[in-house]
Amino acid sequence: MEQIKQELIAIGKKAKNAKAKLANMSTNDKNKALLAMADALENNKDIILKANSVDIENGEKNGLTKALLDRLLLTEQRIIDIADGLRQVASLPDPIGEVMSGWQRPNGLKIYKTRVPLGVIGIIYEARPNVTVDAIGLCLKSGNVVVLKGGSEAINSNIAVVKIIQDAAREAGVPEGSIQLIEITDRAATGILLKMNDYIDVIIPRGGAGLIQMVVQNSTVPIIETGIGVCHTFVDASADFEMAEKIAINAKTTRPGVCNAMETLLVHESIASQFLPSMIKNFEQHEVEVRGCERTKAICPNAKSATEEDWYTEYLDLIVSVKVVNSVEEAIDHVMTYGTHHSESIITKDYNNAQKFKSEVDAAAVYVNASTRFTDGFEFGFGAEIGISTQKLHTRGPMGLPELTSIKYIVEGSGQIR
Amino acid sequence: MEQIKQELIAIGKKAKNAKAKLANMSTNDKNKALLAMADALENNKDIILKANSVDIENGEKNGLTKALLDRLLLTEQRIIDIADGLRQVASLPDPIGEVMSGWQRPNGLKIYKTRVPLGVIGIIYEARPNVTVDAIGLCLKSGNVVVLKGGSEAINSNIAVVKIIQDAAREAGVPEGSIQLIEITDRAATGILLKMNDYIDVIIPRGGAGLIQMVVQNSTVPIIETGIGVCHTFVDASADFEMAEKIAINAKTTRPGVCNAMETLLVHESIASQFLPSMIKNFEQHEVEVRGCERTKAICPNAKSATEEDWYTEYLDLIVSVKVVNSVEEAIDHVMTYGTHHSESIITKDYNNAQKFKSEVDAAAVYVNASTRFTDGFEFGFGAEIGISTQKLHTRGPMGLPELTSIKYIVEGSGQIR
Repeated sequence: MEQIKQELIAIGKKAKNAKAKLANMSTNDKNKALLAMADALENNKDIILKANSVDIENGEKNGLTKALLDRLLLTEQRIIDIADGLRQVASLPDPIGEVMSGWQRPNGLKIYKTRVPLGVIGIIYEARPNVTVDAIGLCLKSGNVVVLKGGSEAINSNIAVVKIIQDAAREAGVPEGSIQLIEITDRAATGILLKMNDYIDVIIPRGGAGLIQMVVQNSTVPIIETGIGVCHTFVDASADFEMAEKIAINAKTTRPGVCNAMETLLVHESIASQFLPSMIKNFEQHEVEVRGCERTKAICPNAKSATEEDWYTEYLDLIVSVKVVNSVEEAIDHVMTYGTHHSESIITKDYNNAQKFKSEVDAAAVYVNASTRFTDGFEFGFGAEIGISTQKLHTRGPMGLPELTSIKYIVEGSGQIR
Repeated sequence: MEQIKQELIAIGKKAKNAKAKLANMSTNDKNKALLAMADALENNKDIILKANSVDIENGEKNGLTKALLDRLLLTEQRIIDIADGLRQVASLPDPIGEVMSGWQRPNGLKIYKTRVPLGVIGIIYEARPNVTVDAIGLCLKSGNVVVLKGGSEAINSNIAVVKIIQDAAREAGVPEGSIQLIEITDRAATGILLKMNDYIDVIIPRGGAGLIQMVVQNSTVPIIETGIGVCHTFVDASADFEMAEKIAINAKTTRPGVCNAMETLLVHESIASQFLPSMIKNFEQHEVEVRGCERTKAICPNAKSATEEDWYTEYLDLIVSVKVVNSVEEAIDHVMTYGTHHSESIITKDYNNAQKFKSEVDAAAVYVNASTRFTDGFEFGFGAEIGISTQKLHTRGPMGLPELTSIKYIVEGSGQIR
């Protein structure tokens, strides 16, 4: 334990030392480094694939699910895609140095509100080696030092990838210590990291509910909570049935394992008996298991029964819970009671109900007549995404590069005193 | 303990219930309530003064310092000033509802980034009853529910003040539960409050280093860290001596007990022997105790010796530490090693050194040729201040009304799927 702590503090000190230099690295130099890192990944893909095959073998031995093994797996094409991701980050505007606003005070003081990096960002994530490169690219571009703590399942892939990136970065002039991976797989390391307020400015957990909750409960370092999504689609009395069905199928089935997928469909009682039979048939054709309330089951007896727990559940799977509600008010109540304030959609032709839903639903993204699946940095047009914040502090919704920054006020005077 | 917990959860539930209604209260209605609250305070000043006299009596018995008793004391004039503060908040623009930006995606989706309240804000503070009213006013105007936990020394004043404000607020249509005071003075209450993630969205501690650290170490609710300031003024080789002296005296002596006061003066070696004698004489005339490094003492033998600990210390008193440095680089190093990233100032005529100091010093506010005392919501022109953030997340520097808000993305579609 003490040895782990010492190793982590050494990483923290190196990170802290790199901070000021990296914050002042020019956009041109950061972009050159990103491109060099992308090339290095492609040029060394054999090394990466070999390391990845060890992780896959271990994963199979340890009985990882097929879905997890697929997330863990790297292929030649996936490495090319990951490298292209770095090139895309290089092409994005650099948020650092932006003067967000500036004004002059009556006493002549000139105040500039400028964007600066957050400093040292700790990223704690699970078994996806692509997150490693993603996070490195976004942190470097935004002038942030990154300390990575990936899942033990991907440790060999991560070590190989980070080594290659570090070498390319060093050669391109990125300050030593700007990109670091915690190679200790002992879970105690995470606990220590979460208390390293002297070295880490922000921690961003990326992963399932268990990981996020563990970080929320234990971190004394400020965190950005991401990504638990119990998202709803409410089909109002006036909805276009065809549109509603298309959106519901899209929100549920295109990628059921992601946080912006729909988990619960709410249907206005006045249209339930006309709308639900075709909708549920459509779900079944897409191999979606339907768990309905009593009124849903009265209309579609084939549906399983939803329990109270279902309304709280992020299935991350081809399962949907369906509830008939009396009104837009009951729909909003349900969303506020059981939702996670991530993404919520109303399908309606009624102006007043659209206005009501938009103003009374408190979530990162509130939709009218569109799929919740659009809550995503790329779909929003940010060109990048480090995660989706579901907390109120700092930022909310998809996080791109500007969301990885803080503020420095520059105040220019000529001898002013107060 | 269990009973305290139940009482706090009851407060939390009431707060959570008020959230949606308060978030949608119109600016006009909020302003009317603020003005009514201000009138109510003035109309009931006898009740407040009587309650305050009990706190003062208890404080005297318990041996509070003169400075603390003064902070605790309310007078007729102070109540009028506090009420005027509410009227001023009423006159400020309402941040809620602002569309910060909006754009259309290639698929026709219209995305609006809108400002919404943070939700429920917990304020933990010490023995200043004016903070009670300040916090209530700023939270109400920004549509946030507030749960107050003030110092036990001010409990009678706070109960009286909050009761009067609650009555006026209720009559003005503010949702029940929007303004609540935790009347339990048991310290255990704070510990419980810091873990109430289900009910409280953000906690803002206002007070001394001990309080802030306790909150940082124990809160699982997201917090905004405020106000520890070990602020420096660096007098560069090219400084205008008269300006430097005037700024240093201003930064040290006008209100030594606040966080933006200077604690350490750094002086370039090439001018130290010319500059320091008059500067230190000036400090002495202002009854400031000087603690110098060896080189300072060589020039001004009357100064006491500064220890390593002095460089870390926020005196909050008429004491200053003085250090002679070799260069702007050493000054920046010192600031980054011992400072708290609050407010830092360079006094110089040298363009390059000004640029260097501005870009390399990492602090909420970095000054050229001005007093650090300007780091303040009013001095920045925000018209209000709930505290000064010294963390990187969410916001940094003085916090006005917009800093008490979060984001909601509204996405309007016409059937878009992904």
